[in-house]
Amino acid sequence: MENWLHKQADLKPNQLALIAENKQYTFAQLEQIVIKRAQQLMTILDDNRRVGVLTTNCLAGYVTILALQQLGRQLVLLNRRLAKPELEDQIDQAQLTQIVQDDAFELDLSNTQQFTFHYLSQLAGQPAEILADFKEDQVTSIMFTSGTTGRPKGVEQSFGNHFYSAMGSVLNLGLLPDDCWLAAVPIFHISGFSIMMRSLIYGIPVRLYDHFDAHQINADLLAGRGSIISLVPVMFEKMLADLPRNQAYPASFRQVLLGGGPVKQVTLVASQTRGISITQCYGMTETASQIIALNPKDAAAKLGSVGKPLFPVSLRIVQQDSEGLGQLEVKAPNIAVGYLNQADKYQASFDDGWFKTGDLGWQDDEGFIYIKGRQGDMISSGGENVFPQEIEAVYRHLPEIEDMVVVGVPDTQWGSVPVALVKFKSDAFLSVADLRNYGREQLAHYKVPHDFVEYSNDWPRTASGKIQRYRLVTEYQNIKKRPS
Amino acid sequence: MENWLHKQADLKPNQLALIAENKQYTFAQLEQIVIKRAQQLMTILDDNRRVGVLTTNCLAGYVTILALQQLGRQLVLLNRRLAKPELEDQIDQAQLTQIVQDDAFELDLSNTQQFTFHYLSQLAGQPAEILADFKEDQVTSIMFTSGTTGRPKGVEQSFGNHFYSAMGSVLNLGLLPDDCWLAAVPIFHISGFSIMMRSLIYGIPVRLYDHFDAHQINADLLAGRGSIISLVPVMFEKMLADLPRNQAYPASFRQVLLGGGPVKQVTLVASQTRGISITQCYGMTETASQIIALNPKDAAAKLGSVGKPLFPVSLRIVQQDSEGLGQLEVKAPNIAVGYLNQADKYQASFDDGWFKTGDLGWQDDEGFIYIKGRQGDMISSGGENVFPQEIEAVYRHLPEIEDMVVVGVPDTQWGSVPVALVKFKSDAFLSVADLRNYGREQLAHYKVPHDFVEYSNDWPRTASGKIQRYRLVTEYQNIKKRPS
Repeated sequence: MENWLHKQADLKPNQLALIAENKQYTFAQLEQIVIKRAQQLMTILDDNRRVGVLTTNCLAGYVTILALQQLGRQLVLLNRRLAKPELEDQIDQAQLTQIVQDDAFELDLSNTQQFTFHYLSQLAGQPAEILADFKEDQVTSIMFTSGTTGRPKGVEQSFGNHFYSAMGSVLNLGLLPDDCWLAAVPIFHISGFSIMMRSLIYGIPVRLYDHFDAHQINADLLAGRGSIISLVPVMFEKMLADLPRNQAYPASFRQVLLGGGPVKQVTLVASQTRGISITQCYGMTETASQIIALNPKDAAAKLGSVGKPLFPVSLRIVQQDSEGLGQLEVKAPNIAVGYLNQADKYQASFDDGWFKTGDLGWQDDEGFIYIKGRQGDMISSGGENVFPQEIEAVYRHLPEIEDMVVVGVPDTQWGSVPVALVKFKSDAFLSVADLRNYGREQLAHYKVPHDFVEYSNDWPRTASGKIQRYRLVTEYQNIKKRPS
Repeated sequence: MENWLHKQADLKPNQLALIAENKQYTFAQLEQIVIKRAQQLMTILDDNRRVGVLTTNCLAGYVTILALQQLGRQLVLLNRRLAKPELEDQIDQAQLTQIVQDDAFELDLSNTQQFTFHYLSQLAGQPAEILADFKEDQVTSIMFTSGTTGRPKGVEQSFGNHFYSAMGSVLNLGLLPDDCWLAAVPIFHISGFSIMMRSLIYGIPVRLYDHFDAHQINADLLAGRGSIISLVPVMFEKMLADLPRNQAYPASFRQVLLGGGPVKQVTLVASQTRGISITQCYGMTETASQIIALNPKDAAAKLGSVGKPLFPVSLRIVQQDSEGLGQLEVKAPNIAVGYLNQADKYQASFDDGWFKTGDLGWQDDEGFIYIKGRQGDMISSGGENVFPQEIEAVYRHLPEIEDMVVVGVPDTQWGSVPVALVKFKSDAFLSVADLRNYGREQLAHYKVPHDFVEYSNDWPRTASGKIQRYRLVTEYQNIKKRPS
């Protein structure tokens, strides 16, 4: 396929493409500033086909991401909220030599050149070779996600992945001439990055928010400045709380796309009362965004369901128990084409051609899917995926700790939060404050367990020896009930 | 991708899928009757992977086409208007052994079993193996089209071709929840067949017309029963003429997709006056429907243009003359995957990976494309493509005829019609009536030249010896001006 940005600049030069930081750009203008940034990048880029990006949802980051894509570089989108050792591990895995970053990013990372967007914007630029075609199997973006082993894997997403993901979405949500997608979720996540790609494929504008401000977004929506928004439940709850009782969003605002965790019934009811159309959806980095979605018209009848697999997605549930609960596996052209440097792990994530999502769920008589939990016990906390094994691995470095298990417990604000059950070595002990401080040095804040309790029994295990984490959730809750 | 019909029956079981012959079917119901027809077909089908279909736009034909597709058979969609020798040639090329046909079709075709839809509907049925997946590269439909050599070529269209074609269309026209596509163009043509495929891909209903009745269609549109219609210009003109002066289509009728030839300025003006949104488009059997389209907002400023290449289509113009006129070549995932049994011709239709459309055109400063004429001198007559070489080849069989050249001349009703310039052998002669009668026996009526004139000069030729047909158009017109 022809270069998407170039194609839209050809097809719809005067169509709005981006609204950010009180500026707005048509596709022709966006192409112009992106090409300029590509030329500036050519002044500093070495031959490494991968370039790291550390950015907030700022205009300069948006443009730089597109510029690297235009140059055919693989974008390694690093999570802006990670701690230094986490970032350095991913930089090492991706063999990055250069990173472009927003001006406020302060960490010095080992073995890489770091360039701020401001620095780039001052450069004169050099001739740049722009991709003529976006080839279906060419990797354009890499995002890290953790699996059950704990060490993050770099998910390789191709142009074809993003294209089919956008097609699945358009066949579900439709496409109107005045569509405008609001991006308040991070563009270094698939949730935000997929909005950027849809904009290029559909030829519609993105309204970019540099941080989540419920009041500002409500003001924009009430003024008719947006038709679709992607949100995690906690964001949507804040918007509902902020929305004045006597006001309603206009009909042009047609859809809230809610992902990243279950939605509370009270939220669903509130949105219905206020006439807001919600599409709940399920997806992962490996599927380049949504693959299952629940339409608004089914939301009331199918409470708790994530919906049905989108058009280009097939789904099956294997190893079902007597009640139909089993492992969700999918087949779709938007399944990522590889894990960075881990061909074996990629192979292992398929079962006879079906991608193992790692989630457990079941399907009702009408084909609606309900997700029960993550096989790998991932904790979904405020839209971020937290993997217990990764946290445990960090803490096991402490000499005082013999073992630790992290589990997710329900939380009214974040959906779920990690808590830790700790076994200390004989005669050793650390306070909760010590444990928390150590975590904050080593991990992103959202990964640091919200609570630590001492645990002295043997871990509950399956017949085959695997720790039964779900039982530890109950044990943790029992411990907390006891008078201390 | 999962079987499209099955997918929609899963995703939207209660969504309307088809309205035909005063009946209507949801996707769940359509799947049911299609599977039943597939089972009935299993009672009679031999092992030939190709099955011929001869049908009007009737419900039974629609269902039988889908049933054959469900069985993974290659549909050979024969033009219901062809004469017996033409059909037999195509049957021979496709090595067909069986044909399913509407009840009114009367010709006895050599070497094939013929089954009417009524006959099929009486059968008990046998177990049928339904396609689980529609694989991107699997050929599902074959339609014949003539090239410059005259003998029709079977164009092999894959599921991927139809999918990408539908994607190009949705990215141009958008998709609304209440969309309903009106099919008054033949379903054995790519124009109608592509509507069937879009219905399966988008999950929207088709309103099928067994024949074109401008008044009936207007009545439906005025009553809000349709949002998009595909038409050739002559049909649209009839609808405009029939539309009462004091009435206007409702806003829910959002688009006329006009293809198959140039649109008259008076038609464009009339549609603007009456508030009708037209998308002019260009496509061919080999591109599985539209690849270039002109949006309504550009129609007035870009009169005569077919627009810009759709999202998944790249276009280039090669061998341009001093004024920029050259050969249109395209690259797109919806280019047909082959010509039946003619791998060499298929190869020859590409120029370094670019498909040679055979059309001559130019592009203005803003990228809008204007088509000047067909390199192969195809005559587009009332939505049917007429190829001079095919007609000439038939006539050259007559002992009285030494040579004949057929050219297209403008016609107020059909856009263009074929006329013939004839050289008789010395002392031989045939009357216009004789020539016409012979043509009617051998060719579809629309291919029979509307006029025959004797021509005794040498044919005008290019330096390399090719006949300059465009000069013969002028010569024909001069002959007609002379007092006879």
